[in-house]
This record gives sequence, structure tokens and C-alpha cells, in this order.
Amino acid sequence: MDTKKLVVGIDIGGTNTKFGMVDRIGNIYAEENISTPLYSDFEDYINALKNVIEKLEKDVEDAEIIGIGIGAPNGNHNTGEISFAANLPWQGTLPIVAKLQRFFPSICITLDNDANAAAIGEMIYGGAAKMRDFIFVTLGTGVGSGFVANGEMIYGHDGLAGELGHVIVEKNGRQCGCGRCGCLETYTSAPGIKRTISELLALSNEDSIFRHKSLDEFEAKDIATAAQNGDKIANDAFAITGETLGLALANAVTITVPEAIFLFGGLAKAGDLIFKPTIASFEKNVLKVWKNKIKILPSELQNKDVSILGSASLAWNSINRGLC
Amino acid sequence: MDTKKLVVGIDIGGTNTKFGMVDRIGNIYAEENISTPLYSDFEDYINALKNVIEKLEKDVEDAEIIGIGIGAPNGNHNTGEISFAANLPWQGTLPIVAKLQRFFPSICITLDNDANAAAIGEMIYGGAAKMRDFIFVTLGTGVGSGFVANGEMIYGHDGLAGELGHVIVEKNGRQCGCGRCGCLETYTSAPGIKRTISELLALSNEDSIFRHKSLDEFEAKDIATAAQNGDKIANDAFAITGETLGLALANAVTITVPEAIFLFGGLAKAGDLIFKPTIASFEKNVLKVWKNKIKILPSELQNKDVSILGSASLAWNSINRGLC
Repeated sequence: MDTKKLVVGIDIGGTNTKFGMVDRIGNIYAEENISTPLYSDFEDYINALKNVIEKLEKDVEDAEIIGIGIGAPNGNHNTGEISFAANLPWQGTLPIVAKLQRFFPSICITLDNDANAAAIGEMIYGGAAKMRDFIFVTLGTGVGSGFVANGEMIYGHDGLAGELGHVIVEKNGRQCGCGRCGCLETYTSAPGIKRTISELLALSNEDSIFRHKSLDEFEAKDIATAAQNGDKIANDAFAITGETLGLALANAVTITVPEAIFLFGGLAKAGDLIFKPTIASFEKNVLKVWKNKIKILPSELQNKDVSILGSASLAWNSINRGLC
Repeated sequence: MDTKKLVVGIDIGGTNTKFGMVDRIGNIYAEENISTPLYSDFEDYINALKNVIEKLEKDVEDAEIIGIGIGAPNGNHNTGEISFAANLPWQGTLPIVAKLQRFFPSICITLDNDANAAAIGEMIYGGAAKMRDFIFVTLGTGVGSGFVANGEMIYGHDGLAGELGHVIVEKNGRQCGCGRCGCLETYTSAPGIKRTISELLALSNEDSIFRHKSLDEFEAKDIATAAQNGDKIANDAFAITGETLGLALANAVTITVPEAIFLFGGLAKAGDLIFKPTIASFEKNVLKVWKNKIKILPSELQNKDVSILGSASLAWNSINRGLC
């Protein structure tokens, strides 16, 4: 029997670190899971990664690991370091690729942040498989993005490019966690649409279930449910969110002109509620030459294990491109 | 004596078509010039290009032409076609690369639009020579741009990427020639700063030489002169133009994170008048992680023959990258 050439995808989260042995077409052969905060010392954590990787290779019969892909908050593809990630237990700059490479000197190891990992996952395993130019947008707790142009992720001079969530869309707009005001993610993230609910409750006299709940008592998905049940404030909130997102995307495409834009994350799960007003606003606002030419699509990773597939795709992408 | 390996740069304008024989470091060995509208038939024009190219090769002793670069309005790098260029005498889609390639089957021929040609000129002959990530912005009759990421021009799916001038910066803003409202170029082009003068004359009671001139009677460079002479309206117009441009650039860098942004064209010649408020607004509006890290610089092609160097650089770039 031939050796199965596999990669290990590692998704580092504040709570769990997930591992998966994945082949070129997205089959997951084995998975593991460890607690991230259990390892208060970063060297101990690196040793735990090493042990799990070695165990996985033994667990899958006739498997050979040819790559390791790591998705992590604030993971920098250019430097191989994780820098100042607020949700992880270790301080400062963590040279995770260099440390892991010592244990696996002949294996290709690639690091990236979560949004880029998901974008490359879309390219390797999802709807962007044959595309050289696309934009991937996550609408979650924040708004993240990955821009692929000429078949390559745009990393920028410092490895931190693709921060669509921090494009300023309203001068003197909503206060953002980044210290500025009016960033896209204060409008089109899950917390952003809740802020729009608050704004609409102030502006309108319309009744709504959200008049009777505190902000702690509902989430973005409850707004989707309310909208489906006919709550006008909830429907208006989606219409406004789509209007804002569509304009921001119409502006973004003037720079990279993608074949398609993929939407991913909690808000994207609301389906037509978010896609319809986003596409309408995009088509209204986009430069004439691109009208009806750029698709806005749901991510095909939405219902798959994006954390493992995204990080595994980082390794396959490096291997496919002959980078290691 | 060794053969000199040169390229021909061809800049196609509505009035003149300029030719130059250029080496790898920007020396121009010979130049020619023909009238563009003299050739009402496109086939005749192609024959004229062929004849001039052959003449140039004879004119320079021991020269061998190894590439041809063509800069043209609406020139599309991906297709090698010029499409619907309003200022050129021929209608429809013009497959200029394919037609010229018939005469020079073994020579690398590359087409691009003017803004991209200037951007690649900055990369081959100017301040971006060692950069893999930069933005080039022309502030002229319109606002054009070229985005280079990972050492490659971003062309996008259709070859038309990099239209920074058509990012909408004001909802319901100034009417743009593209049929929409609020595009950057309605504010930060040469006509844009004139519109800002009109707006300021309406808003303020301040005296100004522009109260005594019709819009036909002055140009953007007269606003620079007036500002240097202490005209407050003129100074305010530059301050506002820089404010708008700086915010648009702060938003653009979130996508590609360049090492530097180069400003080129009529307005960029105003020096500190435009650079100071642009940099101040950029630094005020940019995401914290990039504060004081991204340079905004005058193009080093500003006082060189950008039309010939830009188009010649297209050929050298294709040759350097092994594309032909």
C-alpha cells in the first residue's frame, strides 16, 4: 500500500487547540484536541504540539506528514510569529514556526491568521478552488478578510494585510475597539448589527421584541430569527447592515477586482437576510464596468470544519506553490 | 562591441504616440514621435508602429530589441487589447498586442494602461526599485493608481484593477464622470481641487483671487501659486484635498499594506502643500499598527520622461519575471 501523504492542520484558539490529519482533497483522517490555557509556559505548549503531531502520524496507518499548517490569532505568515494575541496565555512575540521547525526540520511549516487560513481553505477546499482573484470576508465577532490576487494571498509589507474590518466607512462613526471611529466592523459584525438594533430602537417607534430585551439577552442569530418572524426592526437592521457591507465591498473591488467575494461567519449564515441587501447595495454602488460581473457567494466552508481545513490548507498551499 | 539589449517603450496618447529605445537602467538611446489621429485606420497605425520600431533598431548602433512595452489609455494587460478608449481615433476593442506580435513574433510585447505603466516605471526605474509592496497614485485630470503586492501588479480578474479614483469617499457626494457620486477623483484630482475652491467660495466670506476668476480662467497649478502667495481659500483647498486623500489612503492600506505610497501628477507637484495635509490625515486615520510605518513619497519619475520610461518598464518587468 502506498504511503498517504498528509498534512497536519493546527487551529490555535483561546480555549482549544485542534489538530487534524488532512489530505489534498480535504478528507480528515484523524483529529485531536488539547486545552490551550493548560500550558502556561510556551515551551511546554510547543512540546505538547510536538507530541500530538507525532501521535497523529502513528494513529493513521501508512501516513507520512509532509506539511504543518497553523492558524492562530495574530499569526503572521511573513515572520512565522504570533504577536500579542489577546486571547492566548503567552505574552509578547512567539516564534512558533521556528520553535516547531526544530522538531520537524524537514517538514514544511506555515503560519497564518484565522481569516487568511479560512480564505486559503476556500481556495484549496471550497468555492474559490479555480480562482486566482477573490476576496474572503468573515462576519463574526469582528470583520476579517483575506484578499487573493494573482493566485497569491496579499500579505503586505508586514504580513498583516487584509484588514477590511478596519476600513473607515463613516467619518465620526461608531467607536471601534481599535481606538478609532467608523470602522466597517462596528457595523457589519455580530456586535455591529446589535448596535444597529439599538440605533433603530432610538430612531423609530416601531414595536420589536428587542424593546423588551437588554443587549446581554440576545445575539446576532436572534436578530435573524426575529427578522424571519416579521420583526420590522430586525429586518431593517439586516437591510442597513447589507447596505453598509455592499458599499464597502464595492469600494474594495476597485482595488483588486476579484472573480467572487465569499462571505463567511455567523452573520453570513443568515442567508438571504444578509445576502440580498448586500448584493443590492454592491450592484448599486459598484463602478459600471463591474456591474453584474462579480459574484457574492456564501463560503463553501461554512458547514465544514473550517478550523482544521483552513489550517491544513495553509500547508497544502505552501506545498503546491513549491515554497518548501 | 557587445550588442546592446534594449526595449522599445511606446506611449499611446490621443495626440501623439511617443517611442523610446531604453535600457535596463533607464537610459534612452533614441526617440521618435508620430501623430496618433493621423492614422484613422487602425491597421495603418499598426504598420506605422512597425516602421518606427524597425527604424529605431537601425538608428541605434549594435542594438537588439528584446521587448516592446505599450502604455495606452484603457490598455488591458490581461487581454493585450485596448477597449473603448475615448481619446483614441479607433472604435471598439483593439487587439494591439496580437497585431504587433505578427510582425515581431519572437519579441516580448506587453500592454498596460497609463497608471499601471507609471507604477511599474516607479518599480523598475524609480523609488520603488527594491519594494515588493507599494501603491502608486496619479493625481491628474483623474485619479489613477497601481497596486503592487508580492512584487506583482494587481490586475484583477479582468485586468482592470486598481481604480482608487473610483472609491466612493462621500455618500451622495460630488457627481463623477463615471455616473456615480462621491468618487475620490471628484475631490483629489486637478478638477477636484477646483471644485473644492468653488465650495469654499460658497461657504466662506474670505477674499480670494478666485472670487474674481471663472472656472475657465484658472488651473490646479494656479491654486498652488495662490496658496504660496497666502491666499487662504487656496490653502484651505489643499488642506481639504489632503484630508480627503489621506483618509482614502489610510483605508486602502488596510487591504495591501504597502511599504510606501508614491504620489505622481499635477497635484503632487504642489509639494508640501499637498503632502503635508495628506500625511497628517493619513497618520490620523490609519490603523494604529501602521502609524509612522508607511511612507508617502513623491514619485521619482515626476521629473523624468514618464511616458517612455513607464511603457519601457512594462517590457523590462515582463523580461525580468520570465514571462516571455
